[in-house]
Amino acid sequence: MVLLSLDNIKLTKLSKIKNEKGDIFHIMKNSDNGFIDYGEAYFSWILKDMKKGWKRHKCMTLNLCVPYGCVKFIFKINKDGIIREETIGEDNYFRITVPPNIWFAMIGIGNPRSLILNIGDILHDKNEVESMTEEQFSIISN
Amino acid sequence: MVLLSLDNIKLTKLSKIKNEKGDIFHIMKNSDNGFIDYGEAYFSWILKDMKKGWKRHKCMTLNLCVPYGCVKFIFKINKDGIIREETIGEDNYFRITVPPNIWFAMIGIGNPRSLILNIGDILHDKNEVESMTEEQFSIISN
Repeated sequence: MVLLSLDNIKLTKLSKIKNEKGDIFHIMKNSDNGFIDYGEAYFSWILKDMKKGWKRHKCMTLNLCVPYGCVKFIFKINKDGIIREETIGEDNYFRITVPPNIWFAMIGIGNPRSLILNIGDILHDKNEVESMTEEQFSIISN
Repeated sequence: MVLLSLDNIKLTKLSKIKNEKGDIFHIMKNSDNGFIDYGEAYFSWILKDMKKGWKRHKCMTLNLCVPYGCVKFIFKINKDGIIREETIGEDNYFRITVPPNIWFAMIGIGNPRSLILNIGDILHDKNEVESMTEEQFSIISN
């Protein structure tokens, strides 16, 4: 059995290359430390002050970047556990790598909205994602 | 020898999933027709009315999406060849798959700027990218 820890969530500072016609932002190379595989990539928009979550992937490792706006991610192992928060965005440009079995939610900070890229190591599969409302999350121990 | 054709550039209409807190945009699954491999992903911003290019990759297949703003891509096989233009963006959301050995340039249409995601099948390597200015491109036959 592998002990789950919020310390297993990895932050990677990413390069931004200045260009007078528009900057270039690195995301992830297949040679990066910790790269597992490419399953699927998708964008999620989040409007300012909206909260999405909670979600937990049983199998997928997430790689999250925010190239536009700013998003606060909140992570928990379980209801009573410690929270870890990470706020990333265009001006604080990191990749967050989230291993499976960690609950997460996200709050839009950027005005009017922010863009999140997730590169997952497996295909999206609704059977490997658990969802809980804020209310359920504060009631149900897991 | 494989004959190069601008018809080999493939447009794929991508799904957008409406969500009142912020929509979700599909990008690419590893099971998609034509998916080769994952090498590296990066973002490029482009300011309105700016033109980036021309560039040609000898080895990389590009997968281009524009989740924010709008960008016109221009493709050519050679100086005297036919041009193909494709304009994609948040409101006309497609993935453009560009095989190697095709010259391309891009013009920012969205105001004040637009965001391009490229997922390449190999790592970025400056030795496999050729660049030409607009002036060179109109002088040098290739």
